Amino acid sequence: MAQKPCIPKGTRDFSPEEMAKRNYIFNTIKDVFLLYGFRQIETPAMENLSTLMGKYGEEGDKLLFKILNSGDYLKDIPDCELAEHDSVHLTSHICEKGLRYDLTVPFARFVVQHRNEIQFPFKRYQIQPVWRADRPQKGRYREFYQCDADIVGSDSLINEIELLTMIDEVFNRFGINVTIKVNNRKILSGIAETIGAADKIVDITVAIDKIDKIGIDNVNEELRSKGISDDAIATLQPLLQLNGSNSDKLATLKAMLATSEIGMKGLEEMTFIFDNLSRLDMKASVEVDVSLARGLNYYTGTIIEVKARDVEIGSISGGGRYDNLTGVFGLQGVSGVGISFGADRIYDVLNALNLYPAETSNGTKVIFINFGTTECNECMKHVMALRKAGIAAEIYPEAVKMKKQMSYADALHIPYVALVGETEVANHCISLKDMATGEQSTLSIEQLIDKLKNN
Amino acid sequence: MAQKPCIPKGTRDFSPEEMAKRNYIFNTIKDVFLLYGFRQIETPAMENLSTLMGKYGEEGDKLLFKILNSGDYLKDIPDCELAEHDSVHLTSHICEKGLRYDLTVPFARFVVQHRNEIQFPFKRYQIQPVWRADRPQKGRYREFYQCDADIVGSDSLINEIELLTMIDEVFNRFGINVTIKVNNRKILSGIAETIGAADKIVDITVAIDKIDKIGIDNVNEELRSKGISDDAIATLQPLLQLNGSNSDKLATLKAMLATSEIGMKGLEEMTFIFDNLSRLDMKASVEVDVSLARGLNYYTGTIIEVKARDVEIGSISGGGRYDNLTGVFGLQGVSGVGISFGADRIYDVLNALNLYPAETSNGTKVIFINFGTTECNECMKHVMALRKAGIAAEIYPEAVKMKKQMSYADALHIPYVALVGETEVANHCISLKDMATGEQSTLSIEQLIDKLKNN
Repeated sequence: MAQKPCIPKGTRDFSPEEMAKRNYIFNTIKDVFLLYGFRQIETPAMENLSTLMGKYGEEGDKLLFKILNSGDYLKDIPDCELAEHDSVHLTSHICEKGLRYDLTVPFARFVVQHRNEIQFPFKRYQIQPVWRADRPQKGRYREFYQCDADIVGSDSLINEIELLTMIDEVFNRFGINVTIKVNNRKILSGIAETIGAADKIVDITVAIDKIDKIGIDNVNEELRSKGISDDAIATLQPLLQLNGSNSDKLATLKAMLATSEIGMKGLEEMTFIFDNLSRLDMKASVEVDVSLARGLNYYTGTIIEVKARDVEIGSISGGGRYDNLTGVFGLQGVSGVGISFGADRIYDVLNALNLYPAETSNGTKVIFINFGTTECNECMKHVMALRKAGIAAEIYPEAVKMKKQMSYADALHIPYVALVGETEVANHCISLKDMATGEQSTLSIEQLIDKLKNN
Repeated sequence: MAQKPCIPKGTRDFSPEEMAKRNYIFNTIKDVFLLYGFRQIETPAMENLSTLMGKYGEEGDKLLFKILNSGDYLKDIPDCELAEHDSVHLTSHICEKGLRYDLTVPFARFVVQHRNEIQFPFKRYQIQPVWRADRPQKGRYREFYQCDADIVGSDSLINEIELLTMIDEVFNRFGINVTIKVNNRKILSGIAETIGAADKIVDITVAIDKIDKIGIDNVNEELRSKGISDDAIATLQPLLQLNGSNSDKLATLKAMLATSEIGMKGLEEMTFIFDNLSRLDMKASVEVDVSLARGLNYYTGTIIEVKARDVEIGSISGGGRYDNLTGVFGLQGVSGVGISFGADRIYDVLNALNLYPAETSNGTKVIFINFGTTECNECMKHVMALRKAGIAAEIYPEAVKMKKQMSYADALHIPYVALVGETEVANHCISLKDMATGEQSTLSIEQLIDKLKNN
């Protein structure tokens, strides 16, 4: 009995049409990465679990796909241990490897492992799939690509400016209008310091983020319910009503954070970045947003998030600075800053806005109809000549009914069909049909090459 | 205590230099695939084990990387089953997924699963990694890429001819001299039929393959030791001494296989293919080779193998026709023929023969030295202007010693270094150093763009 085949939930097949769109996305991002001097690396899909475990929190550890050891993996496990019936404990004995969960931890491992071969500052990009045993849902997959660019070994803010202009260029090429939100972890620390509630930063950023939806009174109430004192809430008021231009916001923050050394450091960094961006010709709107707190335990300076302005969807890109990426692997003092583009969400946005260029596929330009052995010999020579000229061409492999061959050409959106029957063989010519206009013409192979080359 | 990071044995990291070479290989193959009208698909890294198991023989089942089920995977396993201490049996209860072992089985699964969306004949290509828990050794990895092109849904021999000319084009672009060996499973069946020893085909092909090394007498002795009768060995003699041109070989085979219907069918197919190839302008040497038996249980018609002529290494490409690819998944009668390029071995051959083009990397063309904040503002504008013109440019992010910045440029093989100091800022110009010649010149940004665009 034959199996009915399917793929694991949360994973996807990609058809030629989908691949053409995906390649357009990857190639666009890759082109910009190269333009900015980033250099590609790749790391294995499998990493040692000792590399991955403990890097993504307890929840992350659970979401790692773990690979069963090869061979008789139970051989050295004592019976008593099996009898415990403890999945988590057994895993540590029967699995040594896992699939990478993101590109950042493998990159940190790469930097430490190859530190003697790397020229710092190291500007690397990496476009590879990652795997997470998350519950699959709309827009969330168990296998998806990340497109990361990071600069490590330099704490210059020029790197932040470069990344922000690079984000601008990527989305400008896609034709997607975006807002780039920028925050700084040090400003958040400064706020916490100012109000004397360092452990409440997450509550505060969540509350600030709700202002537009629920209004300031409800936000204040929520802060109170989280155990933040009335004094602290009073001090927070300018922050809750932060608006106007980026300069206005930075001025308000400056007044508020005056007594916090770390807060003022963060403000200085933000100010430097916005001053510089104002001199460069940015298409995107770039906004100071103190509610931005993504990856709070991870980032130590600038925090970046990108939202599409014309589609309701989560962030389509994000990143920031981390001061101790490689510390966990024993290499201290390597500061880095990076950005990750979410290819799957960009795919959805381009679909929603119908922004794909007309010709994302570089598919076959002309197909030769197969009329049988004699004609076919002639067609094969023509096909070879076209390919030699760099023109994608094919011949229908079977001498089946013309209608079937034409509908194949039609389904694959092949723009030209070449017909070489008895007459054409005798006259050394090709009848060409333009599938868009229906127009027919008779050409020599040289004329055909000429026509399709200039097309 | 920090972990000393490493990667699982048999896997590899790829540095920017290695990625540039690998991309050259993948892009060359991909360009030719497209030129021939193949269309890309991708499938998930993980497949259900029900899809993978039993497709690669008992040994293959062992070499599959299996993925532990998520969550409390022991929950529903009775104690008595754990007490059995049986790795193989337990695996079937705690793992549902595995990493793909090749691209062929996932492709077969893809064809069956999507058969209503696919336009047949389906010419697909796929370039993705595969994973095998093989013992790692020189040139054999646990993660490696396959580059496959197949045509399914057509049993026309035109497909074979297309694949053979495509192989020729790929290796011609690489500059690798190759011999393409061609055999046909039906000829092997015919030989077995003729000598009345169908179960001895493998022994026979192995023996034929040794003629050059050990001589005909030793080969005959080996055949006798394998239990092949003296009569059969006598009948095999013309085959063992098969030489001369392809036509000579085909003529000898014709005489020998005259009584075998299947043998004559195979011969007819081979003859058709070689006749057609002789009319096309092939660079590679194409040879009839009846000792070729790769994937014997798998291929049903043409068998193809490619050897590099100037390097001692295993086959660098191979493939053939399989008449029932999708039968195991319940879709009968889909014939296919395909070819797989071994990217890792091609990498080794290109390295051994030093055949990489001088410029495989499209890296940074010019780097701006960082002299400090004021100069840097000017440089950033220049860098942006260069990128706008499509020229990869960067700025050294820190105002460190000139020597350090120059050695960075040198290590990354960046061809030009731009210096914008106080004087250049005042005069709105750029001092440019050609790193190859040491030559220095002073240019406007427009002149610099012009120079690098034409470079």
